[in-house]
Amino acid sequence: MQRRNFIKQSSLTVIGLGVFGSLLSNNKKAGAALSVNGKRIESRIFELAKFGVDEKGRNYRVAYTKGDIEGRAWFMELMKKAGLNPTIDAAGNIIGKRKGKNSSLKPIAFGSHIDMVPDGGNYDGTLGSISALEVIEILNENNVVTEHPLEVIIFANEEGGTIGSMAMAGHLTPEGLKQKSQSGLTQAEGIKALGGNPGNIQSAKRTKGDLHAWIELHIEQGGILEREKIQIGVVEGIVGIVHWEVTVEGFANHAGATPMNLRQDALLAASKFVIAVNEVVNSVKGTQVGTVGKINVQPGAYNVIPGKVVLGLEIRDLNAAKIEMLFKEMEKHAATIATSTKTKISFERQANESKPALTDKKLQQVINTSAKALGFTTKFMQSGAGHDSQEIAEIAPAAMIFIPSIGGISHSPKEFSTATDMANGANVLLQTILKIDKE
Amino acid sequence: MQRRNFIKQSSLTVIGLGVFGSLLSNNKKAGAALSVNGKRIESRIFELAKFGVDEKGRNYRVAYTKGDIEGRAWFMELMKKAGLNPTIDAAGNIIGKRKGKNSSLKPIAFGSHIDMVPDGGNYDGTLGSISALEVIEILNENNVVTEHPLEVIIFANEEGGTIGSMAMAGHLTPEGLKQKSQSGLTQAEGIKALGGNPGNIQSAKRTKGDLHAWIELHIEQGGILEREKIQIGVVEGIVGIVHWEVTVEGFANHAGATPMNLRQDALLAASKFVIAVNEVVNSVKGTQVGTVGKINVQPGAYNVIPGKVVLGLEIRDLNAAKIEMLFKEMEKHAATIATSTKTKISFERQANESKPALTDKKLQQVINTSAKALGFTTKFMQSGAGHDSQEIAEIAPAAMIFIPSIGGISHSPKEFSTATDMANGANVLLQTILKIDKE
Repeated sequence: MQRRNFIKQSSLTVIGLGVFGSLLSNNKKAGAALSVNGKRIESRIFELAKFGVDEKGRNYRVAYTKGDIEGRAWFMELMKKAGLNPTIDAAGNIIGKRKGKNSSLKPIAFGSHIDMVPDGGNYDGTLGSISALEVIEILNENNVVTEHPLEVIIFANEEGGTIGSMAMAGHLTPEGLKQKSQSGLTQAEGIKALGGNPGNIQSAKRTKGDLHAWIELHIEQGGILEREKIQIGVVEGIVGIVHWEVTVEGFANHAGATPMNLRQDALLAASKFVIAVNEVVNSVKGTQVGTVGKINVQPGAYNVIPGKVVLGLEIRDLNAAKIEMLFKEMEKHAATIATSTKTKISFERQANESKPALTDKKLQQVINTSAKALGFTTKFMQSGAGHDSQEIAEIAPAAMIFIPSIGGISHSPKEFSTATDMANGANVLLQTILKIDKE
Repeated sequence: MQRRNFIKQSSLTVIGLGVFGSLLSNNKKAGAALSVNGKRIESRIFELAKFGVDEKGRNYRVAYTKGDIEGRAWFMELMKKAGLNPTIDAAGNIIGKRKGKNSSLKPIAFGSHIDMVPDGGNYDGTLGSISALEVIEILNENNVVTEHPLEVIIFANEEGGTIGSMAMAGHLTPEGLKQKSQSGLTQAEGIKALGGNPGNIQSAKRTKGDLHAWIELHIEQGGILEREKIQIGVVEGIVGIVHWEVTVEGFANHAGATPMNLRQDALLAASKFVIAVNEVVNSVKGTQVGTVGKINVQPGAYNVIPGKVVLGLEIRDLNAAKIEMLFKEMEKHAATIATSTKTKISFERQANESKPALTDKKLQQVINTSAKALGFTTKFMQSGAGHDSQEIAEIAPAAMIFIPSIGGISHSPKEFSTATDMANGANVLLQTILKIDKE
């Protein structure tokens, strides 16, 4: 069994050579006893991609829809074959368990999600889910039994607001359950469609200490690792996110009959604010990001001076205080812009904000050491995207492993990661679990 | 008859006193033999406003719709009573004629339009239409027969692209007739609904020399006259208008996972362009205006960096070469912005452009002299808005008289002009016609 796997790993590493042009990582990797089957991971990524394609051929494995339900069924079938006896908790999370030698130890959990945004990509969430299963299969194939019990968790509706992990952390409120999801169903209806039990949602909750650790392998979704030619990202934390709806009120008037100096142009003011957001974010050192991703103008005609503009502002950072500081600075700029353009600018903070979540320092070190031992280059970095790990970080030591996203593209059908990078990430996940298990 | 009118004019001037707080204009006005009935003008403005109100109580006398058709019928009834024997030409224009003493002279024409933009105001077009009728009635009441024949013209679908006057100038093409109008009907269908004959549209055409002159009284639609406390605007010309669709292409990406320096943010680039448009327009002396009135962003979410933005750019000026010069300057700025933001900016000039139209210099002088003789302050100015006069200027000496728009508001239910200003404008129209007639 081991021999067969070794051959597969070798053939896989040939692909790696094409990408990185070095024999070094292969040589060092030979020292590790167990290694994942990279081809199997990639072929399952492609197989899962077939679930959730709409009539226009567009990816649509949105949580609670047909594609999501069918994809989950396919995944649970594989879990069964791997002996994981999967069950669905009250929040619709799929949980597969593998016994350890010492049943008094708390389980090491790992996994991710398989739902996607509309028109999304085939790697976000699925890599961590399929690699978690791969880890179990490699252990099975090599007759390895860990000290700790193991749990593979596939969270429900990650893309619609980390719903499943939120329930596990005890943060999903009755109001949250009533909220409409992208599928058109409420969260409660959607969870029910997955086989969960929203009426007993509190039973999905885990308390602090229930899990020994949580590890999530994920694509980076940004372009840093690819650009810096680094193989493994060690995630230090998941950024906090705050949204504001920004309303700029000017005065709609005839674009021909109103001289330039008599205008109260809401779009001109909004444009100055968009630039101010960019300048404020860039004025400070660090990895904070600020984005104006939405803009709507009224009345919106060639020949009418814009009377009202509504913008969507987002700020993300690992440090909550920095988010507040940046916003205060933007508010100051807005006041100056409003005065100079004779407009009114107001801000409405949105309810859906998420706090920054730091990953466990010890787990970070284990990931880094495991990756280095496999011959990979590493980088400590933040996750700019939200993940289930940010919820689980509140109830357990949590960590994330990143691999490069080609072109830094995500939430798009163009999302892509190489088979080599996926296998690298899965191997780091495997070695990390084995190391944690022994400590 | 004259005595009765004098009394009405006196009572009207009292309103004027309230607004301008001066007896001067009244004293000087007494020298003019004929004077309009300001109360009648205002009450007809209110009466016409009742036609074309939709189920939500919103003004909707859009060309070719029920309100437009009913308003025109009401107007034609008044024309009949005034002995104008109104007919409808092939383009749907209402034409009323009054004989002059000398049938070999070409007619002096005046009027405007009664259709409006959706949710429009009650003064745009209607003032010139009702005042034209008022002039005829004052002549009737005072048994005055002019040397020239007179024509009152109410143009069809001004707001939808000066359709009726375009036909009269011979510019309405078969393609133009196929175009959809705001009403949902094609121009041809709409013209038919008004009682016109689109199949014989060329019969609506007048050739150069057919009209002795064309005078249109109109609200300013801007705030210059009110701001400078001037009673009458003498229009030197109607600006040319060119529209461009501006497309900014960046790259849509995850707003959390994409660092600031790796972004190709189409909205950031578009914002810089909006500011550049404003700066370019303000960098040159003159009355040119430039507006970005439309903006659309894709995909348009808080958490996605804008990948594509489409803007609507408009430039207006009395000088066509200046419009081109300003646009070239904007294009240069766009190239710089595209480079610095790693985006692509492209321009698509729209087919609906209108050339600047200059009014007749002699007529301008007659209007100015007539207004001064009535004791009014005057200002030579351009029309930033388009008007039927721009079409008629190509086939006849044309002129326009402006009165103040309160707050400079137009194309809005808030559009307003005082009864005094309306009477002032109508008196200038009356005196101008009488002066032209005698020259």
